[in-house]
Amino acid sequence: MALIVQKFGGSSVANAERVMNVARIVTETYAKGNDVVVVVSAQGDTTDDLIEKAKEINPSASKREMDMLLSAGEQISISLLAMAIEKLGFKACSLLGWQAGFSTNSVYGAARIKKVTAERIRLELSKKNIVVVAGFQGLNKYDDVTTLGRGGSDTSAVAIAAAMHADRCQIYTDVDGVYTADPRKVPGAVKLDEITYDEMLELATLGAQVLNNRSVEMAKKYNVVIEVLSSLTRVPGTLVKEAVKMEKMLVRGVTKDANVARISIIGVPNVPGIAYKIFGKLAAENINIDIILQSVGRDGKKDITFTTSRDNSEQAVKVLKGLELGENLSIECDDTNVAKVSVVGAGMETHPGVAAKMFEALFEADINIQMISTSEIKISVLIDAEHADDAVRAVHDAFIPDEK
Amino acid sequence: MALIVQKFGGSSVANAERVMNVARIVTETYAKGNDVVVVVSAQGDTTDDLIEKAKEINPSASKREMDMLLSAGEQISISLLAMAIEKLGFKACSLLGWQAGFSTNSVYGAARIKKVTAERIRLELSKKNIVVVAGFQGLNKYDDVTTLGRGGSDTSAVAIAAAMHADRCQIYTDVDGVYTADPRKVPGAVKLDEITYDEMLELATLGAQVLNNRSVEMAKKYNVVIEVLSSLTRVPGTLVKEAVKMEKMLVRGVTKDANVARISIIGVPNVPGIAYKIFGKLAAENINIDIILQSVGRDGKKDITFTTSRDNSEQAVKVLKGLELGENLSIECDDTNVAKVSVVGAGMETHPGVAAKMFEALFEADINIQMISTSEIKISVLIDAEHADDAVRAVHDAFIPDEK
Repeated sequence: MALIVQKFGGSSVANAERVMNVARIVTETYAKGNDVVVVVSAQGDTTDDLIEKAKEINPSASKREMDMLLSAGEQISISLLAMAIEKLGFKACSLLGWQAGFSTNSVYGAARIKKVTAERIRLELSKKNIVVVAGFQGLNKYDDVTTLGRGGSDTSAVAIAAAMHADRCQIYTDVDGVYTADPRKVPGAVKLDEITYDEMLELATLGAQVLNNRSVEMAKKYNVVIEVLSSLTRVPGTLVKEAVKMEKMLVRGVTKDANVARISIIGVPNVPGIAYKIFGKLAAENINIDIILQSVGRDGKKDITFTTSRDNSEQAVKVLKGLELGENLSIECDDTNVAKVSVVGAGMETHPGVAAKMFEALFEADINIQMISTSEIKISVLIDAEHADDAVRAVHDAFIPDEK
Repeated sequence: MALIVQKFGGSSVANAERVMNVARIVTETYAKGNDVVVVVSAQGDTTDDLIEKAKEINPSASKREMDMLLSAGEQISISLLAMAIEKLGFKACSLLGWQAGFSTNSVYGAARIKKVTAERIRLELSKKNIVVVAGFQGLNKYDDVTTLGRGGSDTSAVAIAAAMHADRCQIYTDVDGVYTADPRKVPGAVKLDEITYDEMLELATLGAQVLNNRSVEMAKKYNVVIEVLSSLTRVPGTLVKEAVKMEKMLVRGVTKDANVARISIIGVPNVPGIAYKIFGKLAAENINIDIILQSVGRDGKKDITFTTSRDNSEQAVKVLKGLELGENLSIECDDTNVAKVSVVGAGMETHPGVAAKMFEALFEADINIQMISTSEIKISVLIDAEHADDAVRAVHDAFIPDEK
C-alpha cells in the first residue's frame, strides 16, 4: 500500500462531468489499495469571476480581503469532488487549507508555506476516507486565510507529499507528460519518461508551462517524486526526480518563450559601476532580468542590452530614463518582435558540442541569433519572434531522435 | 458610543450596487461613533446556485460536504462587503463563522449555536475596524464547517448581539418594519413601533416572513433588542423587545399562511390510543402538525382532521396509509385549497371578545370557517384559500384603527 497525492487543476474540475472523471481516477487509485490525498484548484474560471466581482466594487481592495474572497473557489471544488467520490460509493472528506494544517507567512496573495502539519489528513486517512484538500490556500499566524498565488495548488500538493512522505505526487495537467518540445508545434516531439528537478526547473522557467516552478523547487528540496500526467488519457506520464536513468539523449527539451522584451541602452559611459547602477536599480524595482549582453567599450562608450518579460518592459524603460546615465544616450525597447528559444539537458555541460550543434541548426534554418545565454544545463538564444516556431523545430530535430 | 450589530440578507447584497448601498449604511452608523459588527448572508441566488451544482453531481451528497459547499457563499459576500467599506475610506475586516468564534453542534445543515466567543470580533473592533461576519455558519467540535440552515443569518446576528451585549441588533429586510398585515394586500395595514418577542414569534410562525423564528427565540432568551428595518428607505423600523409600551391596540397583526394542507382521516375506530398512534408516528417522521380537530365519536367511529405544511402532506398521507388504522377508513388530503388566517396580540387573552369579533368579521364577509385554533396570544382559522386575502382585510379592518 502506498500513499499517493494527486493534484487536479481548475480545468480538470470545470464542470460536473469533469468532476466525475476526476472522482473516477481518484477512486481507482484508492481501490488499488492506496491511501489517496487529492488536491484541487478552483473550478475553471471561478477565480477570474471572483476577481471580476471584486474589481466591480473596489479595484484596489486589500489583499487580505482578496484572499478571503478567492479561497472560496477551492472550497466549492473540494466539496463537489468529495460529493462525486461519495456518488461512486467511496468515503470522502474535504478539508480547507487551514483544516489540512497549512501554515503560511502573511504575504497575502503570494504567501509562502511555512509548515504543513497534515494531522487532520492522517486522521481522515485512518478512517478510510479519500481526503480532498483545497489547494492554493493556508492560514497565517493571525488566523487569517492566505493564498499562495497562481499555480499555488501544485505547491500545495508537493507540500503535502513532502510532509507525509508520500510515495508519489501526481500532478494531472492537460498534457500527458513532459515533452522534448511543444507537441502542437513540433511533430517529432517525444514524451520523456524521466527528468531531473533541475531540468524541469529550466523547462518551467522557459515557458513549458507544465509545472509551477515553486512546486519543483520544493519537490527538489524534500526529494518528492512528481509524476506529470493527463486526467484524460490514463497513460503513464513523466517522472520528475533526482536521479534519472542514463539515456543517450543529451537534450531533454527545446522550448520557446515569447514573453520576452529586449531593451538596449546605447552609448553608456564606459566607467566602473555603471552595470551595478543599472541592474541594482532594476532589482530594487522587482524587475527580473534574464540575458545580459555588454559590448566591448570603444571611445569611452559602451552598449548594454538585456531581456526581461514583456509586462515589465515599460516600467524598466521608465526606471532607466530616471537614472540619468549620461549625455547622448538612447534607450531602445523591442517588446513585440523577439522570442527566446532554449535547449535544456543535464548532460550538456560535459558535452561541448551542444552549443555548436544548436547554432548550426539555426544557421541552416537561416535564423539570425541576436543574443546568447548559457548555464550548466541550458543554452538560450534570442531571435526574431516570427522565426521562433521554426527555430524550435530545427533545433529539436537536430537533437532529438525521431522515434516515430 | 454604542455597539450595533447589523444584519443584511442575500437580496441586500445581490450585486455590486447593493453591496455599496449596504456599505454606506454600515459606514454611516460607524461614522456616528458606534462600533459596528455586520452579519451578511450569501449574495442573492448564490446558495441556490451552489445547491444546483451539488445536485448535478450527487443528489444525495453528505450533509457535511453540503455545508462545506454552501458556506463558501458567505465567504464571498463578506469579503466583497469589506472591500466596499474600504472603498468608502473606512477600515474593515471580514471574518468567517469559525474566526468569529461560532461553535455549533454537529447537525450539518441545521446546526444549533452552542457558543460565540467573539474574541476576534473584539480584537478587530479595538483596531477600529468595521467587522463583517459570515452569517449562517459555524464550526463543530471536529473542526468541521457547519451551517445553521435557512434563515440562520438572523440567528447569527442575534447570537453575536447576545454574546457581546450589543445595544441593538438591526435586521435589515425588504420591508421597513413589522406591519399589522401584509401592506401589499391590506391598504389599512399599520407599521408597529414596537412588538413583544412572543407576538413576533406568532407572527413569524404564521407566515409574516419578516424574522426567522430561531433568532426571535434567542433574542427573547438573552434579551436582545431587535430592530426590523429596510435597507432602502432609511426610516426607523419596528423594535422587538420584552416590555413594549401600552397601546390601545389589542391585536398586533393579521396574517395569512397559504402553505397549509388539511388531512382528514374519516371513520377511525373510536378506541383509546388512536390519536397517540397517529401523531406519535407523524412526529417520529418529523412532520409538524398545526391545528388538530377530532369529531365526537358516533357508532364506534370518529373523524380526525389536522393541518400540516403543504410540502409535508404527501409524506403524511403515506405514513397514515402505512399505519393500518382500521377497516373502511378513508384518508382525504386537501393541499391546494385551504389557507390559515390568524390574529396575534399579547393583550387578547384578557379580552374574551376578540374571537367573537374575528368570527363576526368573517361572517359579514361571507367566509366559512373550517377549523379553529387558539393560543394565549393568537386565534387562527382555516378557510378556503381563495378567500384568504379578503379574510385578512375583513379581520384587519375590524381590529386595527384606520390611521390614514
